[in-house]
Amino acid sequence: MQFEIVHADSDTSARAGVITTAHGIVETPVFMPVGTAGTVKALHMKELREDIRSQIMLANTYHLFLRPGTDIIEMAGGIQKFNGWNRPVLTDSGGYQIYSLAGIRKFSEDGVVFQSHIDGSKHTFTPERVIDIQRSLGADIIMAFDECTPFPCQYVDARHSMELTHHWLDRCIEHFEQTECSYGYPQSLFPIVQGSVYADLRKQSAEFIASKKADGNAIGGLSVGESAETMAEMTDIVCHILPYAKPRYLMGVGTPANILDSIALGIDMFDCVIPTRNGRNGMLFTRNGIINIRNVKWKDDFSLLEEEGEVFPDVEYSKAYLRHLFVSKEILAAMIATIHNLGFYMWLMRTARAKIVEGSFCNWKNLMVNQLMRRL
Amino acid sequence: MQFEIVHADSDTSARAGVITTAHGIVETPVFMPVGTAGTVKALHMKELREDIRSQIMLANTYHLFLRPGTDIIEMAGGIQKFNGWNRPVLTDSGGYQIYSLAGIRKFSEDGVVFQSHIDGSKHTFTPERVIDIQRSLGADIIMAFDECTPFPCQYVDARHSMELTHHWLDRCIEHFEQTECSYGYPQSLFPIVQGSVYADLRKQSAEFIASKKADGNAIGGLSVGESAETMAEMTDIVCHILPYAKPRYLMGVGTPANILDSIALGIDMFDCVIPTRNGRNGMLFTRNGIINIRNVKWKDDFSLLEEEGEVFPDVEYSKAYLRHLFVSKEILAAMIATIHNLGFYMWLMRTARAKIVEGSFCNWKNLMVNQLMRRL
Repeated sequence: MQFEIVHADSDTSARAGVITTAHGIVETPVFMPVGTAGTVKALHMKELREDIRSQIMLANTYHLFLRPGTDIIEMAGGIQKFNGWNRPVLTDSGGYQIYSLAGIRKFSEDGVVFQSHIDGSKHTFTPERVIDIQRSLGADIIMAFDECTPFPCQYVDARHSMELTHHWLDRCIEHFEQTECSYGYPQSLFPIVQGSVYADLRKQSAEFIASKKADGNAIGGLSVGESAETMAEMTDIVCHILPYAKPRYLMGVGTPANILDSIALGIDMFDCVIPTRNGRNGMLFTRNGIINIRNVKWKDDFSLLEEEGEVFPDVEYSKAYLRHLFVSKEILAAMIATIHNLGFYMWLMRTARAKIVEGSFCNWKNLMVNQLMRRL
Repeated sequence: MQFEIVHADSDTSARAGVITTAHGIVETPVFMPVGTAGTVKALHMKELREDIRSQIMLANTYHLFLRPGTDIIEMAGGIQKFNGWNRPVLTDSGGYQIYSLAGIRKFSEDGVVFQSHIDGSKHTFTPERVIDIQRSLGADIIMAFDECTPFPCQYVDARHSMELTHHWLDRCIEHFEQTECSYGYPQSLFPIVQGSVYADLRKQSAEFIASKKADGNAIGGLSVGESAETMAEMTDIVCHILPYAKPRYLMGVGTPANILDSIALGIDMFDCVIPTRNGRNGMLFTRNGIINIRNVKWKDDFSLLEEEGEVFPDVEYSKAYLRHLFVSKEILAAMIATIHNLGFYMWLMRTARAKIVEGSFCNWKNLMVNQLMRRL
């Protein structure tokens, strides 16, 4: 995996870059749509490629491990072939899903024993096992197995959790170096900074992670309930320590405003379920602000979803029609909201990148952060 | 509305025709995808136009009356503008939905009082009211208000129901002639033949309906549980009586085999939820037979959905991937199955039409009827 910084902003720490993987290039800053079970919910692969113009998707190790299972994905020749995406993929390590979805689970120094949320079956994830699974899935970028610290979290617990994550990281790296991708192309392992909301822990964790000289580095355990200010403070501390020349990935972030603010701090990669999950619940992000399309005020608004929008539903459907679809619980409602919101997020990222290259990112960002988050 | 017969088959009663409406032409025999609430479930309008290449869609008066309501559709300028379809639409009369969906209902000589299945609110449909509603919806073809006879049904009840339907038809026609479409273009009213499975009633009803000299005529009350032989027998009797030069619409039919057999009897128009509803449950129709994609036998079948298929999912997704989507309850499963099945139905209708024009319909039909219904 290669990462090249094409342009660095002079007013902020924002950068425009290009990641090159075995399955194609990814221009940064990038938002990665979340394809939990190997599919971005309510979206065709063709739409992800041609309408949303995404260059990379994220898939979840926990979900794919349980269904369809690594045996099926291995027989298909990897996740990119199994789902027909054929472009760069990043898989998470499953830690977060075990934490938030699985039934009874038991953490130990060695790893986690957990029960599937689907059928209650028992499984064990260790750092080595998670690397093996991600070798089978075959994503271009794979993540180290970490313990996701809850919020709020006592200092002593955050420190213990961070130390466990560091210990697991060493095991992940060792096992990663002893194994190979099942399909012949290279994979990159990203370690994850933890440390909750404690500046000294974040600093310590970032230094440990930076010392591993990975192809890219991630920041986990943020956007879990802390304030936007605290998130920015932690992100800023970590970005100053993580290597400049490697991509920085802020996991699970976020709203359009969170993303723009984090780009300014030097983040290159994002993923979040907000555009897809909130979209399926009727929340639309637009250039002028946020629409709750279920609101009765839209029932006779026959204007287009978003006249300046770049994806076809924006200029094919009216607000009144989309509201009708949501009220009637039609599948098409989720389909339209998903493609609209991801189309909007992609427009936001492409525009941010263009503004960085132009040298006008900072002013534009400050304007957008207010404009995009107002309620229409 | 115009109907021109382009070619009549010499071996069977099949015909290839063209219906011309204010919103465009419809080549017959035609299958009309069912867009219950003004949307074909799990399908973009763009896909209905460009991928499935449908020339007409059906929408349900009962559903649109309850949600979003005729006031909203009138403000939009009719159903074709409200949903962005902008092509020919047929609306049913709501009778069948009241019969099968609504809560407590009371039939009388005058009409039906029923409770909404959504919120229990009380409404009255009379022949006049149903014409008014369909004037507001603005479909190109609208249906007379009939009483749908259940199956099995005693002779005396079938006769009484048929007489009520005939009486309501006269009221529909009278009100239709006294009113106009809300949007300036012409609408055509199709009367409906009833009479359950009784040959003499079907004959009597067809003669009554034929005497009205409508732009087109429909056959209702079939495909409700009777055998395929009985359905064909009734259809045959009625087709011999209904005017040759007007389109004949067999309501709610059916499987690929039912449709091909009915085309041979002289039917021009069909609608059915089978390709869409059964598709959402994992039943796929293909040129080689029927697939239950949930079956474990497909879990590691990485072949394309249907290599000779005409719609993009046929050659973009594998059987194993679609099975995974169904097992994982992903929305994309319904999306793929819907576009696949409607794509198949449209291919079947286009091919049937081409075979009629070529003069080779009969042999092809006999081959297909067996091939399409076998289980893979």
